[in-house]
Amino acid sequence: VTHAAATPALVLDRDVLERNVARMADHAAELGVELWPHVKTHKCAEVIRAQLAAGAAGVTVATPAEAELAHAAGARAILVAHPPVQADRLARIVALAAAVRVRVALDSEAAAEALDAACRAAGVEAAWLWELDCGTGRCGTAPGDATAERVAALAGRLRGARFEGLMTFGGHAYGGDVRAAAADERDALAVTAAALERRGVPVAARSAGTTPTTWALQEAGPVTELRPGNYVFHDATQVALGAAGWQDCALTVQGTVVSRPDPRRVILDAGSKALAAERMTPLTPDLGHVSGHPGLTVERLYEEHAILTAAEPVDLPVGARLAIVPNHACAAANLHARMVVLAGGVRVGEWAVAARGWDPVAQPD
Amino acid sequence: VTHAAATPALVLDRDVLERNVARMADHAAELGVELWPHVKTHKCAEVIRAQLAAGAAGVTVATPAEAELAHAAGARAILVAHPPVQADRLARIVALAAAVRVRVALDSEAAAEALDAACRAAGVEAAWLWELDCGTGRCGTAPGDATAERVAALAGRLRGARFEGLMTFGGHAYGGDVRAAAADERDALAVTAAALERRGVPVAARSAGTTPTTWALQEAGPVTELRPGNYVFHDATQVALGAAGWQDCALTVQGTVVSRPDPRRVILDAGSKALAAERMTPLTPDLGHVSGHPGLTVERLYEEHAILTAAEPVDLPVGARLAIVPNHACAAANLHARMVVLAGGVRVGEWAVAARGWDPVAQPD
Repeated sequence: VTHAAATPALVLDRDVLERNVARMADHAAELGVELWPHVKTHKCAEVIRAQLAAGAAGVTVATPAEAELAHAAGARAILVAHPPVQADRLARIVALAAAVRVRVALDSEAAAEALDAACRAAGVEAAWLWELDCGTGRCGTAPGDATAERVAALAGRLRGARFEGLMTFGGHAYGGDVRAAAADERDALAVTAAALERRGVPVAARSAGTTPTTWALQEAGPVTELRPGNYVFHDATQVALGAAGWQDCALTVQGTVVSRPDPRRVILDAGSKALAAERMTPLTPDLGHVSGHPGLTVERLYEEHAILTAAEPVDLPVGARLAIVPNHACAAANLHARMVVLAGGVRVGEWAVAARGWDPVAQPD
Repeated sequence: VTHAAATPALVLDRDVLERNVARMADHAAELGVELWPHVKTHKCAEVIRAQLAAGAAGVTVATPAEAELAHAAGARAILVAHPPVQADRLARIVALAAAVRVRVALDSEAAAEALDAACRAAGVEAAWLWELDCGTGRCGTAPGDATAERVAALAGRLRGARFEGLMTFGGHAYGGDVRAAAADERDALAVTAAALERRGVPVAARSAGTTPTTWALQEAGPVTELRPGNYVFHDATQVALGAAGWQDCALTVQGTVVSRPDPRRVILDAGSKALAAERMTPLTPDLGHVSGHPGLTVERLYEEHAILTAAEPVDLPVGARLAIVPNHACAAANLHARMVVLAGGVRVGEWAVAARGWDPVAQPD
């Protein structure tokens, strides 16, 4: 690992990325569903273009900056999977809706009415998906009749924003039971779509998410579209879940050994500000995976130091380079302004990690 | 909390910051030691200038970008408390040494020799401090004779970089026993300085660190300088340690309620990309502290969502604003390009969080 001059560096293996993008596109095509990959993982125009080229119907974003980046990268359809209830977010989303197809996920009358009013004020069209909580306990209302009743009433009332369907997020897959979470996604969509259709409200879109539940999906059932994000990179958490192998991990953080205070301890310059100190206990009790050194454990992260420990003495002198697969690739990518891109093991360029934070991204004319 | 138009926003209470800066300056003056505050916490030119104006002898940094920022902000003395063993880091540090007093902390012959060679090649002077491990298990060799023997040999041999003293870091204070860690810092410095002086090597500087051990220090003993970083902001971890109260926390992340799926659950738009998902179990089992809402717990963070839960129903509608004190202010600040600055409760401007990542910071002429 000698590709990056300055460490810590975010390093992307483009060959693995392209394989991941193609595999997921094939998987969605085999299932007969649309792919709306989530941009939050990479925030990178080049990756968006690769996903669109592989046939993505649109992309999913969480923030206005990600939406603007997607637009600038050529996306013609964008799902904003985070309720934009603040005036500034609504203004930016509605501005995009004048140029591309915009869909917004939400789970309250307040959010739907705010979107509706903003659309009417701007004279633009946008669609909304209602979010169901299929067991993760984040956003979303309970699947079934009570939700269908609220959604049917809203769909009948709003004139500026149009109801298009249902969305759910099986994030509890990261608790370890991926198949159960994938089934929860399908069940939530099926039962609520049926309840809406009984009320005469067609449910065109039924959107499910997460990388592990998407890989686990063997038949579409009620699902019409999928929103995986992490799959372009994968990470130590996906490997722990069985959703990927190490050879499927496209993203590493490279560091330099800066101190060897003990034969069993290696200090690397890639700390929490390069890797993100996210522990997914019990899936990933360590703080990353050292590529090619199975005996080394990422025991602790300080801001600019990783503490790697081993049961036996290790021969890694000051100045040696190591590559770490992060626990959470999306969080690690967000800490870097750019990725060093390798192809065939050779450095071929750098890609910007854009849309970090809240600054507007320049839009194409 | 209605100061920031766009959320999530990093919000700094300048009044609290100024009080923290003054209190620490007074504390160091009473102890009769120099203050070398660590820039990594804030990476902010305005904060550096406040620290220098309050009498800091110099500042401490971890990276070349932080060093360049400190130089640009007017620091005339910089301690690089991270071994710069990579060619690019050495080149940037040595370039600064032509303009300001530069000191480098290291713990290996390899790092010392690399610094020495770089100084000689550039025709500049730099000093080095040897790092001792006083119990944290990060960088540093064991206090005592064996280390003194190595340092004395190096100090006698190197001609381009000059030995100036010893440094230690009582980071194990964050394990909970702050007084013991502060005592470990003093003991490590005292025993190793005595061993060096027995060998005829004067130890001008004896540098100790961390915010909690600095606040806990009641007499200087062998310590000649202190390197606290976090004290300018404080955070939920410092409060859990007893090193600060909530009224001493200058930095919050403001978020907007975007979803209320349950009377006991509040979803905020400030997730791990705004707060950093760092849990310091058992000190901080939650993921932040909701200001003014003692009944709300920050239970989980997703990238763009915080899941707040309560035992009783809470009345916070979609659109309401909340402020969260992060668990780790240094990690939270690093996620934002700027801070919204309040004085007297009123927004008075924005300060850049610069030197994030590795890009060179423009230096003054």
